[in-house]
Amino acid sequence: MENAKSWISTRSGGKLVAALAAKSKHLTAEQMAAKQREISVSEFFAKNRHLLGFDNPRKALLTTIKEAVDNSLDACEEAGILPEILVEIHQLEEDRFRVVIEDNGPGIVKAQVPNIFGKLLYGSKFHSRRQSRGQQGIGISAAGLYGQMTTGKGPLIVSKTKRGKAHRFQIQLDSTKNKPVITKDDELDEWHLKHGTRFEINIEARYQRGKGSVDDYIKQTAVANPHARFVYRAPVDEEERVYDRAVKDVPERADEIKPHPYGVELGELMKMLRTTNSRWLSGFLQEEFCRVGPKVAKEIIAKAKLGERSYPSRIAREEADALYRAIQDTKISAPPTTCLSPIGEERIREGLMKECDADFYSVATRPPAVYRGNPFQIEVGIAWSKPGDDRLDVDEKGRIRKTKKKRGTFDTEDLLGNADEPVRLLRFANRVPLLSQQSGCGFTKAVIGTAWKNYGLSQSKGALPLGSAVILIHMASVWVPFTSEAKEAIAPYNEILKEVKLALQEAGRKLGAHIRKNKRVAAEFEKRTYIEKYLPHVGIGLQEILGISDEDREDLVNTLHESMENTRKI
Amino acid sequence: MENAKSWISTRSGGKLVAALAAKSKHLTAEQMAAKQREISVSEFFAKNRHLLGFDNPRKALLTTIKEAVDNSLDACEEAGILPEILVEIHQLEEDRFRVVIEDNGPGIVKAQVPNIFGKLLYGSKFHSRRQSRGQQGIGISAAGLYGQMTTGKGPLIVSKTKRGKAHRFQIQLDSTKNKPVITKDDELDEWHLKHGTRFEINIEARYQRGKGSVDDYIKQTAVANPHARFVYRAPVDEEERVYDRAVKDVPERADEIKPHPYGVELGELMKMLRTTNSRWLSGFLQEEFCRVGPKVAKEIIAKAKLGERSYPSRIAREEADALYRAIQDTKISAPPTTCLSPIGEERIREGLMKECDADFYSVATRPPAVYRGNPFQIEVGIAWSKPGDDRLDVDEKGRIRKTKKKRGTFDTEDLLGNADEPVRLLRFANRVPLLSQQSGCGFTKAVIGTAWKNYGLSQSKGALPLGSAVILIHMASVWVPFTSEAKEAIAPYNEILKEVKLALQEAGRKLGAHIRKNKRVAAEFEKRTYIEKYLPHVGIGLQEILGISDEDREDLVNTLHESMENTRKI
Repeated sequence: MENAKSWISTRSGGKLVAALAAKSKHLTAEQMAAKQREISVSEFFAKNRHLLGFDNPRKALLTTIKEAVDNSLDACEEAGILPEILVEIHQLEEDRFRVVIEDNGPGIVKAQVPNIFGKLLYGSKFHSRRQSRGQQGIGISAAGLYGQMTTGKGPLIVSKTKRGKAHRFQIQLDSTKNKPVITKDDELDEWHLKHGTRFEINIEARYQRGKGSVDDYIKQTAVANPHARFVYRAPVDEEERVYDRAVKDVPERADEIKPHPYGVELGELMKMLRTTNSRWLSGFLQEEFCRVGPKVAKEIIAKAKLGERSYPSRIAREEADALYRAIQDTKISAPPTTCLSPIGEERIREGLMKECDADFYSVATRPPAVYRGNPFQIEVGIAWSKPGDDRLDVDEKGRIRKTKKKRGTFDTEDLLGNADEPVRLLRFANRVPLLSQQSGCGFTKAVIGTAWKNYGLSQSKGALPLGSAVILIHMASVWVPFTSEAKEAIAPYNEILKEVKLALQEAGRKLGAHIRKNKRVAAEFEKRTYIEKYLPHVGIGLQEILGISDEDREDLVNTLHESMENTRKI
Repeated sequence: MENAKSWISTRSGGKLVAALAAKSKHLTAEQMAAKQREISVSEFFAKNRHLLGFDNPRKALLTTIKEAVDNSLDACEEAGILPEILVEIHQLEEDRFRVVIEDNGPGIVKAQVPNIFGKLLYGSKFHSRRQSRGQQGIGISAAGLYGQMTTGKGPLIVSKTKRGKAHRFQIQLDSTKNKPVITKDDELDEWHLKHGTRFEINIEARYQRGKGSVDDYIKQTAVANPHARFVYRAPVDEEERVYDRAVKDVPERADEIKPHPYGVELGELMKMLRTTNSRWLSGFLQEEFCRVGPKVAKEIIAKAKLGERSYPSRIAREEADALYRAIQDTKISAPPTTCLSPIGEERIREGLMKECDADFYSVATRPPAVYRGNPFQIEVGIAWSKPGDDRLDVDEKGRIRKTKKKRGTFDTEDLLGNADEPVRLLRFANRVPLLSQQSGCGFTKAVIGTAWKNYGLSQSKGALPLGSAVILIHMASVWVPFTSEAKEAIAPYNEILKEVKLALQEAGRKLGAHIRKNKRVAAEFEKRTYIEKYLPHVGIGLQEILGISDEDREDLVNTLHESMENTRKI
């Protein structure tokens, strides 16, 4: 307003006009122009911190740890190292915590540390087409920024590579410029790891167990990453929890792939034509894209009515448009899927068995598919328990046995809910558990959109099915489309929804068969129990009629009992 | 991989090592460092376009128009101009459209046009604490970027201020640098508007009516902005639809406020201390914050054990922390609410009445509240219709009348659903309708979390209530926390959820009273209908007993009928 007032009084010179301007709150185009300015990406995310998963103190704790652990796992796998990850949470004050994440990864070369931890939108994964947990170059810097905003202190990083010495950085983030400011920078003579990285930050937070907690995250991460070992020290028990590795090979590092022609839009294609090193159009298509050989290139160029030897950089918008249309009209094989690293059916089943003592497990894996040129693959697992505390098993001789279910352990209570409650979803993207935003997630949409009544579960319109069950869904992709930078939910692209539904249907059919069989077994068991009740009386009756001994009567009853069991029809 | 191979063979010189490296896909810390790079904010959003509301062609059309119309309305209101907005959609090819949005706003000064339309994170609203539709400086540039990505052509802008000539820009967005490139720049000798801005872009899109359509958006925007006039030309009917203004005053331009002390975190406070022009701590607190006078400043400083005359820039982290804690411990009045511009109960009621022919309308406004230092205000409106095609009204004499409901108009069909379906939500933030992401929205969460059974609607656990009803919710705030940059849903901050629930309860109580009364009226009507059926027989019976004439009998029946109506108890 001060500005506005002085501006008008200068231009007009009249006191009346100045007085009017002061009274009116309205602005002219020139006044508005003076207010325009650039917004730094750090300022933007500081103000919109819920976009990054820092909505509240509890979630901030989870997000900080998640971002650091994701980076640790990625780095270890890229370097072919079996991950050993330490997570510590120390309570400093009622609402302030120090969080430490340390890994045995390859370490970070000194020159890169400040940018990686102190600059938003900086990283190695955004431009590469390969499956990884991180992809945006935002997460870990955002955690540092959040810590600094809430406690005034930036992150402390120690890192050591195989060849170098351990160096230690204390940095502050200049949010106006989105740049790191180094406040401490020294070399350590000794460090307890041969190589690795340690990230320490003080943050405003709240530690609380239960669904969506750090405990939950570590547990689920261990399930999806059986090759990693976690040591976790939570603030309350002061006792460390160790999640040992179940397998001893690092997952194969996924390949990096070139873009697939179907996933590239006209604008992108024009940009690629301008910046390519290829001198001929045919070479451009073969070198810059995957799945384009000489024959396909020729076909595309002919359809676009262009010359194979045209200079890529001289192609005008209309010609590029023709090329773009020609690509869509040409049959090109699907992108290679060596860039994907799914969890695998066996491991999903094992993970579910470890986490919940269910009556039945069903797993399904879809073949790789493509959305917007990005390969992806969907895996699904279902664990289901029949209502009640007992379980009916059919042994190898076909006999029904009733056993008590194991119950009451920490894990079991958590996962398998009651039969009249919605099933619990476990969502994963590139082996990272998604713990929030369930209702806004494409996976949830796909589960709701599946007709579970066909598979023996009851379900209201537009709701999750009911049952004492867990549904696990994993998406492996070179680019996961999250609904926000916090990477908590999957955007409901149609191609993805379709694949998830197909996988759910496949696992669901097996579940349905089991539930139907279970119902038959239960019915037979009930009938049998009823007859069994009367068998002794039948024995006594026969004894009286035939005049046999007590021993013979018992033999007779046992024989009847056994023959009844062996003639069951299931 | 090429890089990795050559790097290792150079360093080691050995062919064996190079061969091994080529076979192993693993990287060293040094190889990883070479892959680190900066990511431009345009590249980031181009790849994550669903974050901005460009998930699919249909939504892209809506988002493009929404961003432009939001800007037009904001500009008109800032300049005190009654908005006249033209929206045109022309179909160019099956999947390509030209979109035009033109306003009579103050226009944009020439130097600012390229940045406003061609640079993400550039604008005037991000740093100002005042209610406006735009807030991020992303939307309109993102629409341009999307158009360019999908059709190869950037936006065309014509703008004219009162004093200047109309100028025309064609721009391209350089996404690697997040900078506009001007490809055409000329002055028009004549233009049909005295002042205003025209934005034209070609995009890949799909036009389809129904829920979440552009038609829907324009209609709802007209409801929430009754001072604006819209002319809308959709591609199918080729006939323009005009939404005339219902009121003739521009809403008062909302005030800009200083930050409230409660909403500032330690990191922010430290930054403010470093950059302030105030020379004393006491002055700093009074000048940089709202609601801090000499007395409050004195109290804060005493609690922090600091000196009133300390130099702000020399305050260390620990002292700043003490100051921060002292602020939380001091009673400071709520921020001024002149920065808010709610729609108003009367206009919400009128809007609902215009949009749906319901039996009952209930409106509630909460007093302004605060989250993270940001003032906000919640308004709620409910329109409800009883099941069936008839309506029971009680006239001024207390008599029940049954009338046919008006049905079948385009608007009515759309909004009030069937009684056994979930109610329809209309969500608004700063007068902008939110058309997507309903399930992930805090408003939805608040509606689900309200006990509607108390107010006569049936509701399953975790679901929206059922009923032939519309619930409108508006949040007015200096900063709306959206769940993504696309501004489609509200982040569920507790303070906001609480206010929405309180407003819903208030409107809900009135609804509940009406539904109960409605049930009594219906019960009485049924009873009466039943008696009415027998009245003629009573008349005949009395005629036979008393021996009266046919005329007397009719009189008698009429009297009985009337007295029955007049003695009803409701």
